[in-house]
Amino acid sequence: MSTATALSGVIPPVCTPLTPDFEVDTASLVRLIDHLLAGGVDGLFVLGSTSEVAFLPDTHRRVVLDTVVGHVAGQVPVLAGVIDMTTLRVLDHAATAVAAGVDGLVATAPFYTRTHPAEIELHFRTIAARTGLPLYAYDLPVSVHSKLPGDLLLGLAADGVLAGLKDSSGDEGGLRNVLLGRRDRPGAADFAVLTGSELTVDSALWMGADGVVPGLGNVDPHGYTRLYAAARAGDWPAARREQERLVRLFDLVAVGRARMGHGSSALGAFKAALHLLGVIAHPTTAVPQIPLDESEIAAVGTFLAAAELR
Amino acid sequence: MSTATALSGVIPPVCTPLTPDFEVDTASLVRLIDHLLAGGVDGLFVLGSTSEVAFLPDTHRRVVLDTVVGHVAGQVPVLAGVIDMTTLRVLDHAATAVAAGVDGLVATAPFYTRTHPAEIELHFRTIAARTGLPLYAYDLPVSVHSKLPGDLLLGLAADGVLAGLKDSSGDEGGLRNVLLGRRDRPGAADFAVLTGSELTVDSALWMGADGVVPGLGNVDPHGYTRLYAAARAGDWPAARREQERLVRLFDLVAVGRARMGHGSSALGAFKAALHLLGVIAHPTTAVPQIPLDESEIAAVGTFLAAAELR
Amino acid sequence: MSTATALSGVIPPVCTPLTPDFEVDTASLVRLIDHLLAGGVDGLFVLGSTSEVAFLPDTHRRVVLDTVVGHVAGQVPVLAGVIDMTTLRVLDHAATAVAAGVDGLVATAPFYTRTHPAEIELHFRTIAARTGLPLYAYDLPVSVHSKLPGDLLLGLAADGVLAGLKDSSGDEGGLRNVLLGRRDRPGAADFAVLTGSELTVDSALWMGADGVVPGLGNVDPHGYTRLYAAARAGDWPAARREQERLVRLFDLVAVGRARMGHGSSALGAFKAALHLLGVIAHPTTAVPQIPLDESEIAAVGTFLAAAELR
Amino acid sequence: MSTATALSGVIPPVCTPLTPDFEVDTASLVRLIDHLLAGGVDGLFVLGSTSEVAFLPDTHRRVVLDTVVGHVAGQVPVLAGVIDMTTLRVLDHAATAVAAGVDGLVATAPFYTRTHPAEIELHFRTIAARTGLPLYAYDLPVSVHSKLPGDLLLGLAADGVLAGLKDSSGDEGGLRNVLLGRRDRPGAADFAVLTGSELTVDSALWMGADGVVPGLGNVDPHGYTRLYAAARAGDWPAARREQERLVRLFDLVAVGRARMGHGSSALGAFKAALHLLGVIAHPTTAVPQIPLDESEIAAVGTFLAAAELR
Repeated sequence: MSTATALSGVIPPVCTPLTPDFEVDTASLVRLIDHLLAGGVDGLFVLGSTSEVAFLPDTHRRVVLDTVVGHVAGQVPVLAGVIDMTTLRVLDHAATAVAAGVDGLVATAPFYTRTHPAEIELHFRTIAARTGLPLYAYDLPVSVHSKLPGDLLLGLAADGVLAGLKDSSGDEGGLRNVLLGRRDRPGAADFAVLTGSELTVDSALWMGADGVVPGLGNVDPHGYTRLYAAARAGDWPAARREQERLVRLFDLVAVGRARMGHGSSALGAFKAALHLLGVIAHPTTAVPQIPLDESEIAAVGTFLAAAELR
Repeated sequence: MSTATALSGVIPPVCTPLTPDFEVDTASLVRLIDHLLAGGVDGLFVLGSTSEVAFLPDTHRRVVLDTVVGHVAGQVPVLAGVIDMTTLRVLDHAATAVAAGVDGLVATAPFYTRTHPAEIELHFRTIAARTGLPLYAYDLPVSVHSKLPGDLLLGLAADGVLAGLKDSSGDEGGLRNVLLGRRDRPGAADFAVLTGSELTVDSALWMGADGVVPGLGNVDPHGYTRLYAAARAGDWPAARREQERLVRLFDLVAVGRARMGHGSSALGAFKAALHLLGVIAHPTTAVPQIPLDESEIAAVGTFLAAAELR
Repeated sequence: MSTATALSGVIPPVCTPLTPDFEVDTASLVRLIDHLLAGGVDGLFVLGSTSEVAFLPDTHRRVVLDTVVGHVAGQVPVLAGVIDMTTLRVLDHAATAVAAGVDGLVATAPFYTRTHPAEIELHFRTIAARTGLPLYAYDLPVSVHSKLPGDLLLGLAADGVLAGLKDSSGDEGGLRNVLLGRRDRPGAADFAVLTGSELTVDSALWMGADGVVPGLGNVDPHGYTRLYAAARAGDWPAARREQERLVRLFDLVAVGRARMGHGSSALGAFKAALHLLGVIAHPTTAVPQIPLDESEIAAVGTFLAAAELR
Repeated sequence: MSTATALSGVIPPVCTPLTPDFEVDTASLVRLIDHLLAGGVDGLFVLGSTSEVAFLPDTHRRVVLDTVVGHVAGQVPVLAGVIDMTTLRVLDHAATAVAAGVDGLVATAPFYTRTHPAEIELHFRTIAARTGLPLYAYDLPVSVHSKLPGDLLLGLAADGVLAGLKDSSGDEGGLRNVLLGRRDRPGAADFAVLTGSELTVDSALWMGADGVVPGLGNVDPHGYTRLYAAARAGDWPAARREQERLVRLFDLVAVGRARMGHGSSALGAFKAALHLLGVIAHPTTAVPQIPLDESEIAAVGTFLAAAELR
């Protein structure tokens, strides 16, 4: 599966099903992949934030890569997150992902350290130079605590260092600057721009984005592929109707917020939904996340019913 | 080497000397350990932020642990940072550190994820339960982007979960609350409180802290051990004079700030100083940090001369 | 001029022309109003952030109100910012604005203080109860350092406390939640939602927003009114073309960033453009903002030429 | 009352007693001043954050100035906060304060706007040039969202622009840099450095600070004057004992935190304490702050009893 052409479409960040003792539940993972492929997705992004990559030890990461790459067998491109604090650690993850046979790598700016833009640039240049795969920058200020500057991204795009961007910054004005900038920069034309903002996908596609990486796509892949198809067909009102249904469904991420972190509530809700839908065997999220309780899981079920997914 | 009694004194976070191609320079590391032991330090903290732990791949971390534990051979306690995003990843590092024979573990709150205090608590409880070593909480909001609440620390201290705290938050009011709180809580009396704030060590000891983990102690261990000895002897004016000399020396951390991150400038300056002092073979810092240039290194030399270290 | 029907369309935040000694240049202000009315705007927002409200003493604020309300004479609604730290101070500004005859008031959450959501709610309820005018909430986290929660806004909308929202938060997902929420809440249907994000106006209108409050609209009101008209006519491709031209023009806000605050650079560029276009007599911004220098002003001219405004 | 010599000692930020309908309760204010003078304070700081300056309209500010300056009648210096967003607005407050006869002015960096250090410098230089009184910089990042750089402060001190600093940043390392820096800079020797951190006053005095501006000093002025006197007499253990008692008393600021902002809880607790002590007639805090309820007020009483103030 070549990714020489720019990546596009719906590429969900794949949840990582776990057993109650926090091992990777590979049988559930295979069912989840089938659920997503049946939903018509255009690619898969494993080991991203929605995959609980921050919670998975290296052995778990390896199991995920082998399971997914093996099961997908080239039907769609598989991108792998290589999320870690700085360059040398990222390169170790990249080596594992390359060996597993993925089609592209996704890296954030350094975190934990306070990093100068010149250092962020060197970070991406070093990763690209040492791995032979398309490299996607992952802009996620809520986790990384720095915002990738548009000029830096476009410069790295024009130089062929970056193959694309997953923008989860929520900064739609910045996204638009990148989308216009790539038209103007020789060499940046095939820089793939994907949004990670689940609530504004029609808008991002309207501005010129190539695709979307929606965490909620685990629960409702058909919704996002219908949205994407409508947009590509120029039927923007249909895209908007689908998006608005998904905006309302997305509220399930808040079911546990009174008792836990926002991330735990969202990841717990996605997994509870997949469990209720019969896709995965356990709704377990990794330690130290607080699990959803029965009433919170019931609330997730209500959202699924309202969205006519059950 | 037992740490059944509370840790105290000067416990520098040990820099990790690197070769120009970013391998651990074990010969330099051994010389650095000797330099610190000759300086009279009371313990060593490896794989902390000053050790560039965020930049070191797992194999490097292992080399550091084996080199230091082997060379120290029980002369002083060795604490090991087990710095990673969440619990299961930290437990992997902890297993390596335990196998290497360290005397205690140092862990931060989860980072990259947004974590609820109840999840931070579960994080520390899980680490303590799964390892048999004294566990120290590392409060470093500048990296972790959350502040450890005093009540949470004192509760974990009283329950025997935490053996101590390395407070690098810069919040001296919060530090004082913990210091008073441990007097009032049964079971927390032997909770060790160490400050990581190099500029206010006399003040922290005056408030009741047990010791200090000074990054600058790599460069001038004698300065910090003299400061600590003066404080223990009740000669506070001498402690202050020593502290004030060290405050002025500490300004070397800013030599590169115009061109790089604050962390890179500080770590680069510490290593340049150790190189100029003949302790380590190369001033190399790990990629993607910008290296100090000649004029910045010369500025470091001027600071050393002003402090009469050369 | 009644605003009983929800406000909509293009409502620029009006720059406040100053003389070189920082007095309000009322002749220039009148020309600017004529420039905007000739551009077809649907309303005017005075004493907002783009008006340098934070820099204007109370006497200047009063001059602005009297000048604009007098000159507009009911042709379009005039909204007035009542920007201050907390409730009683805001009420003083509101009394002045009411006396001047404005058509609506625009208030932020409290700032300088750290405020609980229940206190933000009481703040808006108190202002609405003590003034007889439509009240618009101004969501501007970059200045106020808190984000207005969607649920709070919708609750106040349903209760008739708030007439609308100016959303300058840049959080398009949150904006969409408010837009969908007002459909679902009885009583919130006529809650006016205006975006202050100049780069995504087509997208905000597409999602259902009623209008836009664009700082850049001072420089190019025709651009925004063409954009709005195209959107209302359902000619979204034309709206996008206009938006993209405006995105490129908006880059003028960065001409001074290397030497001054982002705000000073943007406000200085708007005023330099209005000066180059012959609308206002002086490009002066209020102390302590650094003025643009000649080369920066020339760069603004280049942007105007590229946008075919000169 | 001249302040030509550097200010020193205990200078509490004076609470502003209010009637239940939010007018200044001047009778209570006079009693509070007497309470503080009887406590032996060395000066008074009115219209600071603890005075609820952010909540007071200009007429209230004027009443406070006239009441306090008139009642104090030169017994101790009176400093006045001139807290507002930017320079011209601050100058209006300064003119009022000068007319009222205060002995010095206290100003923060600009807020609400995003301000460059060069603009902060121009801000202070403009205020100092236009008023004839000693000017004190107020470093309060929690409200102002920028930190005053030490170099900027020392440069303004050496140039005679600033008479001193009230440091409420909580950054004790930065405080120490300023304290050492003023020794090294010609012209900065009489720059007064006051800490606003109530929990580390002994430590700040130990480092060389000249005095303290403690909000808690409203409740227990004798505590702070005893602390200061002990430090000046070189009896540091007595200073520490007093400080530790005050640290425990300070916990009263948290009584309402579950239901309101941190500021409302602290200001409410100070006023509840003053009411319980019979100093002020009403515990009212300004709108939109949530008032303490009966159980929270009872908790304040328990703190007073524990500190042997009742």
